[in-house]
Amino acid sequence: MANEQLKVLGLWCSPFYLRVLWALKIKGIEYEYIEEDIPNKSPLLLQLNPVHKKVPVLVHNGKPISESVVILQYIEDTWKQNPILPSYPYDKAVVLFWAKFCDDKLLPSVFDSFIKQGEDKKEAVALAGENIKFIEEELKGKKFFGGEEIGFLDLCLGWTITFFSVLDEINGLKLSDEERFPLLSAWMDNFSNSPIIKDTLPDRERLLCKLRRMQEAFLPPAVE
Amino acid sequence: MANEQLKVLGLWCSPFYLRVLWALKIKGIEYEYIEEDIPNKSPLLLQLNPVHKKVPVLVHNGKPISESVVILQYIEDTWKQNPILPSYPYDKAVVLFWAKFCDDKLLPSVFDSFIKQGEDKKEAVALAGENIKFIEEELKGKKFFGGEEIGFLDLCLGWTITFFSVLDEINGLKLSDEERFPLLSAWMDNFSNSPIIKDTLPDRERLLCKLRRMQEAFLPPAVE
Repeated sequence: MANEQLKVLGLWCSPFYLRVLWALKIKGIEYEYIEEDIPNKSPLLLQLNPVHKKVPVLVHNGKPISESVVILQYIEDTWKQNPILPSYPYDKAVVLFWAKFCDDKLLPSVFDSFIKQGEDKKEAVALAGENIKFIEEELKGKKFFGGEEIGFLDLCLGWTITFFSVLDEINGLKLSDEERFPLLSAWMDNFSNSPIIKDTLPDRERLLCKLRRMQEAFLPPAVE
Repeated sequence: MANEQLKVLGLWCSPFYLRVLWALKIKGIEYEYIEEDIPNKSPLLLQLNPVHKKVPVLVHNGKPISESVVILQYIEDTWKQNPILPSYPYDKAVVLFWAKFCDDKLLPSVFDSFIKQGEDKKEAVALAGENIKFIEEELKGKKFFGGEEIGFLDLCLGWTITFFSVLDEINGLKLSDEERFPLLSAWMDNFSNSPIIKDTLPDRERLLCKLRRMQEAFLPPAVE
């Protein structure tokens, strides 16, 4: 790392940034952190990620990489210590499949169950429940999604811990309900108490304020 | 391959199946092909891909893998000959970034520009044009997205050749316009005339019929 330069543009509560933070922590790699102000995106962010204009961006020796799942694979390919992906191709494919499921299906359904109203909300809540059930199944007989150690899929799902708890408080969604999803609930304890993750989860009160404001912004205007 | 069993569940015109067909052809790997009837999905498909219920599914020695981009990575990890991904981590990350862009942004915008109506169509057409422009930029100074040889991103974009031509005929979208996208147009020639791809593109007339029927299904009901 002597002459290497590593920067990460992130946002303290971004589910996508958190993965990168944790992956670099597992690998023991130091980096310069640049917090983005999302309503007022910096010229640096727009220059480094002109396609999506989103965090996280990892900049290694001046070269930018965007899309958290791509960044995680880059981190794994670049720093071999403490692997986060299985070496056996089939096991790796299963992890990448579920990582894609989390971003394409689980996350949007949870978001919709938070911001939608009426019948749309009911549908989204049911769908989010089905999607979490799929994830719950993947934990059977395991401490972490990665097995005995935290792996790629654990990092992809780490955001759920604070988010589900906060969304449950705001909307009563029962996403983090221990009786409903016992394996996920146990995993949340294991993950958040592991030495590498402890003290890195987003502040719960701050996230609560942010998501309350976000929900207000999505509410339909009141009828006078 | 002596005792190996490889099956692929696909659909002749699926952009996602075509990638798998081409990747296995590049690697020189034989497989049993099972064509799916999408309106009447087979019990086998529902059993092998219970999450998405979609093609393609690759089944290697009885183990199923879904999601075309995951399958391509599995193929690359399993059969090392004729690599389709760069070995240098940064170059690989750039390819995976654009592959994700194709599926998350380009493909949906092209689909919307085909099925939407009125103002929504105008917006989608403009967005599709912007997205193709990004892809065009990636071809500067290159014969293929993979450089001198066909690579991962070429396979991800191969569907555009027949689809853009057919969509242009149905809707006059000018997606395959040589003057508008000269580099993409030249790439389409190079890709479709390369020995490995020649004779594997979906039949144009059959796709034309299929997409005309699909568009009719999306049209708003006529006012009497």
